[in-house]
Amino acid sequence: MRLRDEDSVALAIRKLDQGTEIEELNLTTGQEIPSGHKLAVKAIKKGEPITKYGQVIGFAFEDIKVGCHVHTHNVEVKAFKRDYAFGSETKETEYLPEDQCATFQGYLRPDGQVGTRNYLGVLATVNCSAGVSHLLRRAISQEELAKFPNVDGIVALGHGSGCCLPPDSEALAQLRRTIAGFARHPNFAGVLLVGLGCEVNLVDTLVEKEELITGPRLRTLNIQDLGGTGKTVEKGAEILREMLIQANQQKRTPQPASKLKVGLECGGSDAYSGLTANPTLGAAMDILVKSGGTAVLSETPEIYGAEHLLTRRAVSREVGDKLVKRIRWWEEYTAQNGAQINNNPTPGNKAGGITTILEKSLGAVAKGGSTNLVDVLLYAEPITQKGFLFMDTPGYDVVSITGMAAGGANLICFTTGRGTVYGCEAVPTLKLASNSDIYNRLAEDMDVNCGTILEGETTIPEKGKELFELILETASGKQTKNEKWGFTGHDMVPWHLGAVL
Amino acid sequence: MRLRDEDSVALAIRKLDQGTEIEELNLTTGQEIPSGHKLAVKAIKKGEPITKYGQVIGFAFEDIKVGCHVHTHNVEVKAFKRDYAFGSETKETEYLPEDQCATFQGYLRPDGQVGTRNYLGVLATVNCSAGVSHLLRRAISQEELAKFPNVDGIVALGHGSGCCLPPDSEALAQLRRTIAGFARHPNFAGVLLVGLGCEVNLVDTLVEKEELITGPRLRTLNIQDLGGTGKTVEKGAEILREMLIQANQQKRTPQPASKLKVGLECGGSDAYSGLTANPTLGAAMDILVKSGGTAVLSETPEIYGAEHLLTRRAVSREVGDKLVKRIRWWEEYTAQNGAQINNNPTPGNKAGGITTILEKSLGAVAKGGSTNLVDVLLYAEPITQKGFLFMDTPGYDVVSITGMAAGGANLICFTTGRGTVYGCEAVPTLKLASNSDIYNRLAEDMDVNCGTILEGETTIPEKGKELFELILETASGKQTKNEKWGFTGHDMVPWHLGAVL
Ligand SMILES: [Ca+2]
Ligand SMILES: [Ca+2]
Ligand SMILES: [Ca+2]
Ligand SMILES: [Ca+2]
Ligand SMILES: [Ca+2]
Repeated sequence: MRLRDEDSVALAIRKLDQGTEIEELNLTTGQEIPSGHKLAVKAIKKGEPITKYGQVIGFAFEDIKVGCHVHTHNVEVKAFKRDYAFGSETKETEYLPEDQCATFQGYLRPDGQVGTRNYLGVLATVNCSAGVSHLLRRAISQEELAKFPNVDGIVALGHGSGCCLPPDSEALAQLRRTIAGFARHPNFAGVLLVGLGCEVNLVDTLVEKEELITGPRLRTLNIQDLGGTGKTVEKGAEILREMLIQANQQKRTPQPASKLKVGLECGGSDAYSGLTANPTLGAAMDILVKSGGTAVLSETPEIYGAEHLLTRRAVSREVGDKLVKRIRWWEEYTAQNGAQINNNPTPGNKAGGITTILEKSLGAVAKGGSTNLVDVLLYAEPITQKGFLFMDTPGYDVVSITGMAAGGANLICFTTGRGTVYGCEAVPTLKLASNSDIYNRLAEDMDVNCGTILEGETTIPEKGKELFELILETASGKQTKNEKWGFTGHDMVPWHLGAVL
Repeated sequence: MRLRDEDSVALAIRKLDQGTEIEELNLTTGQEIPSGHKLAVKAIKKGEPITKYGQVIGFAFEDIKVGCHVHTHNVEVKAFKRDYAFGSETKETEYLPEDQCATFQGYLRPDGQVGTRNYLGVLATVNCSAGVSHLLRRAISQEELAKFPNVDGIVALGHGSGCCLPPDSEALAQLRRTIAGFARHPNFAGVLLVGLGCEVNLVDTLVEKEELITGPRLRTLNIQDLGGTGKTVEKGAEILREMLIQANQQKRTPQPASKLKVGLECGGSDAYSGLTANPTLGAAMDILVKSGGTAVLSETPEIYGAEHLLTRRAVSREVGDKLVKRIRWWEEYTAQNGAQINNNPTPGNKAGGITTILEKSLGAVAKGGSTNLVDVLLYAEPITQKGFLFMDTPGYDVVSITGMAAGGANLICFTTGRGTVYGCEAVPTLKLASNSDIYNRLAEDMDVNCGTILEGETTIPEKGKELFELILETASGKQTKNEKWGFTGHDMVPWHLGAVL
């Protein structure tokens, strides 16, 4: 299987004996090629680049003949390693003419953002108000909600932080940014912010520092001011009932695909993730970006050591430098905490056919497609640019998705090889299986089977197109598998920095 | 108001003009004494100790006459500061004769621990299985639960951690210890541990490393093994139904107060916390310890800089050293994370009448009463000793209480001045207001009003006795205010150490 026409290697999707003829590549294997490993599709001279997914994954250490095994014994990465070569691999984005761009049915909000769902949100500033936030969600019964058919429901987002952290810290600034991001999220027709009243992350300070605008769409309450649980639930339910009337008047209208901001995630990856689900997602994101939309890659530990893959696609030196700065920050963050950040191929990766760190990270980066990197965002920073972006987040699924959702992502695509059942409560989350086995076994949780690519039933570009259509349908209201289950609670986990005091 | 008969100072609970006669102390004020400030109840010579709550809070910097103001101008702490004086203030515990010890109605478990409630627990190993854990809780309807009148309900405990942390780290060991602590908690008649299947904190490894014993009272499930959300909920609900039958056969029986392990917490403290609610709790804990029970103080940042108060009460050099070691650990932890740990009196504290760091910490430490410190535990470490213990936790209420509950605390007492609505879902949590204003305003959340002490309606020893009775009733099944609200979710927040990867 060749992933891109220009690649110098192809992948054996099953073990190939020596002397196997492969018609579509017009070659005969010169050696046995293990399943998942690479073979040369053309003669590669010593020192020439090895390309996969259209990207350099290393350089030939010796001359390699057509049909021969390409792996650690004949590939080196050193010369490439430290060269960020800012912008060296950018290419002009071929935007689609406006009349050819896709549309979806979304909720246009006053600030110009577009919602893919129409929820009310109850956001806790601190763990101390999380319980009351959930009581508020439950205070409006399903029967009562049914009277507001245009409202998708009430989402309560509690979390474990908000107090006992230093008042002037990066930790508090990041938490504020995260909660403020949800307060502004277009999937909420209205938001109720609930505080206790003596926490470090006070409601009023949050509103002021983040320049949130209170009014009919954003109301605030403090439990201590109101006199306890019952009074807060009573007052909060009254507010939610007012918001329900207004939210029910919202209608879906045709919106250009350029209003989509898709957050990209992988979790429980396997050897096939980088071959099927991730490049399928990348193909869909290329269509999205060409339609004027936004794709947000994240999970800094997944690209660590191979950030060159992205700096080379950066639209400017400044954008490339922003990424390098975050990489340096992570080196300090992990060192300070006695942890290691090291994305080198493990022995298991190598046995599976992964040759270099560049190749490994390519698998993760493939989710973002092939367009230029237009900006690098901090965790939970508002997503305002169009095109392909990177947001600095941990690899931990829920923490990473919380950051992208807080940034304003209105749809999440999550690839998995081992299987996951997670979905962000406020933002529809499509799950893409990398292999048919996990798709079939977790059929009740998986939305897309990318395993069919391995079986030759479809190709990456075809599957990417199909996924793009599903993204539009989902953005227009089609339920994801996850949404059908009605998960509540623990779907938001802000990235907590530093000590808990 | 004098807190203890042996104290050399008393507190002015309102402003006292110069020359005010105070009959019960047999003195006349020599100066104006601001509200909340201290006055000498006997002549104190230069260099003599100043005692409050029966503890040294500093030394007279000059001769102080009866009735005069005792504050920063005439008190110093230096000489005392660095002297841990291990065990210098221990005194023999006056245990009550067995036939005079109180009893309560509790659930005796096979391992000898006694539950104060009879729940089933659904515990998530990782955030990825938190959503399914909550679906499992809801899978058994209230109508169905009503058929098992001896069961108090099903508690689902999700959290934000469990993956993307280093496999051999202190962080993972601590998380395992915390979840294992809940798995063994006597308030659960049965526990279902739910994992995803590819997380760092794997179910099987957790069970093995923590030497948990699986069987009818502890069952495990992995979502990936079972094939997704619906199948896991179906299988899990079947297990919960089996457990309900067994749990419903459990009956309360008379148990000695020595089986009580009370976790102590303060949050949203005010100037009165250290005068009313905390010493009331301390008086109750003295009765508990004399009855053979266990009181667990926590919140290391609250005693930082005044750890001498506890080392002097340590039963051995070894126990004192354990505390000092944790203090040193905190210095590193906060320094590494760019935070400060500094419990010195703030200008606000001083204006309110707090003179020294010893006095400030005394307010917090007062919750633990006056008996000897018999051991120092790590976060979430099993509580096996009787008597007065210290557990190393952050001050953050939910994180601290999670650690004590994981250690096996079967009742929590939480003092507050500003008001809090938190309660641990698995462990009954009594809330003690430090002043009548907050008690009246948050009457629907507060269990005990210690403000009546300020108003002269009762005394600390009287109120302590009353609280001890309420603890016995609560342990026997009387609902706390918190339990009546039916909070669910976010009541467990393990202390996460280090980086999120
Ligand atoms: Ca991930
Ligand atoms: Ca969800
Ligand atoms: Ca406190
Ligand atoms: Ca606290
Ligand atoms: Ca609760």
